[in-house]
Amino acid sequence: MPTLASSFAARLSQRIQAHSPLCVGLDPSAAILTACGLPDSAAGALEFGQRVLAAARFELALIKPQSAFFERFGSAGIAALEELTALARAREVLVLLDGKRGDIDSTGAAYAAGYFAPGAPLRVDAVTTHPYLGLGALRAFIDCAVAAEGGVFVVVRSSNPEGFALQTARLASGATVAQDLCRQIGELNQHYAGTGIGPVGAVIGATCEDAAAAVAALPAAFILAPGVGAQGATLEDVRTRMGAARARVLPSVSRAILANGASESDLRTTLRALQSQARALL
Amino acid sequence: MPTLASSFAARLSQRIQAHSPLCVGLDPSAAILTACGLPDSAAGALEFGQRVLAAARFELALIKPQSAFFERFGSAGIAALEELTALARAREVLVLLDGKRGDIDSTGAAYAAGYFAPGAPLRVDAVTTHPYLGLGALRAFIDCAVAAEGGVFVVVRSSNPEGFALQTARLASGATVAQDLCRQIGELNQHYAGTGIGPVGAVIGATCEDAAAAVAALPAAFILAPGVGAQGATLEDVRTRMGAARARVLPSVSRAILANGASESDLRTTLRALQSQARALL
Repeated sequence: MPTLASSFAARLSQRIQAHSPLCVGLDPSAAILTACGLPDSAAGALEFGQRVLAAARFELALIKPQSAFFERFGSAGIAALEELTALARAREVLVLLDGKRGDIDSTGAAYAAGYFAPGAPLRVDAVTTHPYLGLGALRAFIDCAVAAEGGVFVVVRSSNPEGFALQTARLASGATVAQDLCRQIGELNQHYAGTGIGPVGAVIGATCEDAAAAVAALPAAFILAPGVGAQGATLEDVRTRMGAARARVLPSVSRAILANGASESDLRTTLRALQSQARALL
Repeated sequence: MPTLASSFAARLSQRIQAHSPLCVGLDPSAAILTACGLPDSAAGALEFGQRVLAAARFELALIKPQSAFFERFGSAGIAALEELTALARAREVLVLLDGKRGDIDSTGAAYAAGYFAPGAPLRVDAVTTHPYLGLGALRAFIDCAVAAEGGVFVVVRSSNPEGFALQTARLASGATVAQDLCRQIGELNQHYAGTGIGPVGAVIGATCEDAAAAVAALPAAFILAPGVGAQGATLEDVRTRMGAARARVLPSVSRAILANGASESDLRTTLRALQSQARALL
């Protein structure tokens, strides 16, 4: 087991206090690379990430590379992701890989080995997972992450309208799928961290009507609120609906970091403004 | 749009008739590589896949590499997967990549571009997806796959016990999550393929009590039945519960291909026997 001081929760809390809870999403789509004057290639994706880190002078709590936008370049894209991840981690910026992985037993453990095993080329600090096979099925995955001082974020409520019906369907117990996940996340965090903040976080869209209720049901978990900016949520939405999770809620911006232009200097201006606003969540 | 003759459904149906509906899972775990006398590395994973294809003399309908067991080696693992995938496809063995991916809008399209865009280094014939964000959210992903004559399998019912509660939760409509997915898969297949077999398949565990009902609700979809052998289901279970999907149900074996040993000759013996049994599903 990791020591408390080096656990994912302790490291993330320390970075949040130092640099604000802003999570910077790195989504090197063709559109974003073009806007940055970069080639639509693995090299372009790497350079985009390097530019964002340099613009922030590495003074960020965490970055969230979206795996899909690197995977589209095959093994070269993964190699770029490895280089970017190592660069960030060497300067203590935490890396949350957004891949929404999930599988059972030894397959789940194999995913986790790729992200958390000693010497893994794509070593990260945390990953996103999907719970369609049941959160219990991810136990081997989560155990492996926690043993390596990593974190796991579970998608609980997504902001897209197509997710509502499934995520609010009712189990035999009467709870909704999302409510039951919150309960299970709480149990896992208690198991791993006692009364402290645990290594299992939740992904909850800030525009979801039930966001506040989900946050209230997660008193010891980090909460990732994706899609702030381009997907319609604002930092004010996050504060209104999720303010109860003070210093645990991570508003995530991706396309919005280009709001003032794509040069390093433009990016710095935007990132500093966003971090300043995000400090209202501390 | 692809022509009917070159569509994923047409190509897979032709291969099933020629070689049986057996789907050969390639799960190069540390345990399997050790059993094969191969190094636990990307090179070992590639050699394992090459050995299975050679043992079968490429006379297989399809292989199903499990992405996790390649991803654990980072970019080198993906490079191995690219080489293996190209080898199989050059000999007309279809490749179903088991990665259970899923994300919304442009992110979903980026995943699909990695598997289906012209010139993609990891070009495959089909992929598995998870529907936690709602099947409707995968529309960009599926459109991209179908435009490239590819297929998409959606996890509907998994055989692990932890999946039951979520997958059978009830929507506001009264249908269960799984039942509603079957309905939506039917609508998508009708949209893409009219009355023929469509490009959207379902993953259903053969040991699920409701497997027969799910199959009955999917009259125009391929059905992948994973975990035959090691995970407790037998080909007889598949025949009993899913026999209604004649020539559309794909029993998938992974660890069980090593039942008689790990040499090329041993693998050939086992694969031929499994294919012979699987022909009962035609």
